[in-house]
Amino acid sequence: MNAEDFLSIQKERVNGFLDVYLLSETVKPESIHKAIRYSVFSGGKRFRAGLCIAACEAFNGDSERVLPVASGIELIHTYSLIHDDLPCMDDDDLRRGKPTLHRVFGENIAVLAGDALNALAFNLVSLAGDCRLIRVLADAIGTLGMIGGQVADVESEGRSDIGGNDVYFIHTRKTAALIRASMEMGAMTAGAPQDQIYIAGEFGSLVGLAFQIVDDILDIESSDEVLGKDVGSDQQQDKATYPKVFGLDRSKEIARTTIDDARAVLTKLNGEKGILDELARFVISRVY
Amino acid sequence: MNAEDFLSIQKERVNGFLDVYLLSETVKPESIHKAIRYSVFSGGKRFRAGLCIAACEAFNGDSERVLPVASGIELIHTYSLIHDDLPCMDDDDLRRGKPTLHRVFGENIAVLAGDALNALAFNLVSLAGDCRLIRVLADAIGTLGMIGGQVADVESEGRSDIGGNDVYFIHTRKTAALIRASMEMGAMTAGAPQDQIYIAGEFGSLVGLAFQIVDDILDIESSDEVLGKDVGSDQQQDKATYPKVFGLDRSKEIARTTIDDARAVLTKLNGEKGILDELARFVISRVY
Repeated sequence: MNAEDFLSIQKERVNGFLDVYLLSETVKPESIHKAIRYSVFSGGKRFRAGLCIAACEAFNGDSERVLPVASGIELIHTYSLIHDDLPCMDDDDLRRGKPTLHRVFGENIAVLAGDALNALAFNLVSLAGDCRLIRVLADAIGTLGMIGGQVADVESEGRSDIGGNDVYFIHTRKTAALIRASMEMGAMTAGAPQDQIYIAGEFGSLVGLAFQIVDDILDIESSDEVLGKDVGSDQQQDKATYPKVFGLDRSKEIARTTIDDARAVLTKLNGEKGILDELARFVISRVY
Repeated sequence: MNAEDFLSIQKERVNGFLDVYLLSETVKPESIHKAIRYSVFSGGKRFRAGLCIAACEAFNGDSERVLPVASGIELIHTYSLIHDDLPCMDDDDLRRGKPTLHRVFGENIAVLAGDALNALAFNLVSLAGDCRLIRVLADAIGTLGMIGGQVADVESEGRSDIGGNDVYFIHTRKTAALIRASMEMGAMTAGAPQDQIYIAGEFGSLVGLAFQIVDDILDIESSDEVLGKDVGSDQQQDKATYPKVFGLDRSKEIARTTIDDARAVLTKLNGEKGILDELARFVISRVY
């Protein structure tokens, strides 16, 4: 199976699960439940959930038990996008082809919807009954992970002295930390041994780094219609990106070699890894 | 021991634990670690942590094992205050006698510090190794609990048609849900049986409701110096409060009878409940 087919099957499963799990828009206070569903079901590839499920299946794990875990990771991703789009952060108007949440529901509801999704994610992950998963996720999205990367990202805006180490610091945290955790949590849910969980994480880190570099590239080369968000906003806000530091051609090369490295790490993973290899190659297919 | 002595001992323990647990201000990105410590160590009675520890001790639970759980609950409380104070919410300048976080570190860092504390709390609670605790906490702070109450609170501002049911809806969620969870989580950590966890929670709910009614009253009757926050801000923002709906005298009476109810529930709790009774009475001592 190729990556796109796999992702589209998992996306259906994750969305189906979340549709049952998330409260109805008629539950009081209605606004927050409407806001949550607006954000959660506004599209998205469910790439992180797909990786998590693929990691679990690689170790013959229970594909039903991993579903709430993978869905929880997607709620974290959704919350991070909502808060990143806020006026006090990136101030974006468009996300996944629709107006950003705060444009529709107001800034206060957007902050609170993000907060609710953050907690809800831990609720979902706890369903697998393994407290280690909580720790992996909380570490990945904390100040040494996703939030730390977001802080560094915000603070690097408009600075002319940004170097390779700075963008690496930002990208490995802002994006790669959660993608690493997706792999680790999938392997962990399957009961994989420690050393294999670590290898799964290493693979996830590299895939995550390449993923963000490609995102930087697409922000320059793609269109609003294709991406569903404001293209060119990185340059407009003078963000720390790989193209800003290394130029477009060198950034593409780095993305490609990073995926080569990820695929090399993958050879050390035991079990069925065909889909994981497809997912790694899918990440850079978008900029070829 | 009286409530104030008990709280001051537990506050010392919780603060000591958090001081070791929270990352140093020198860890990159420094701003977020500074912001977190600024908020977490800006004072506060640690009332929720105290209740949680007292509930655990009532069932002869391990007072060391409950410490990360109780500390995690305080991180949730701190995050909720940071986000409540934001310009898009209550827009407050003063908290615990100091400028609010966003006034010092900017709105973006305030949003992210709250987000980080939210995740960190789950990390701490997971240390007790019981996934049920994660679920109780996540439910308490979700859209049927704390966040739901905050949404209803924000949406009721300036409305003239607010009745008793509305403020009850808001207060039981915005404030009482987390205080209920503090009790339940303390009892759970001690290994109390289901029916006793439920009674602990019922007690917490009533104490939490009274706690918020007293807060409403103090917002009218106290001073900035004593409370450490902007007094009179409820009236200024035309918030849904008990005094707004019932008047000051009737609100005091409701707070008192709610604590009477809580103490009646407490008689059904097995084990040593002296401190819990003191803590219940402490809640209304401030408005006598």
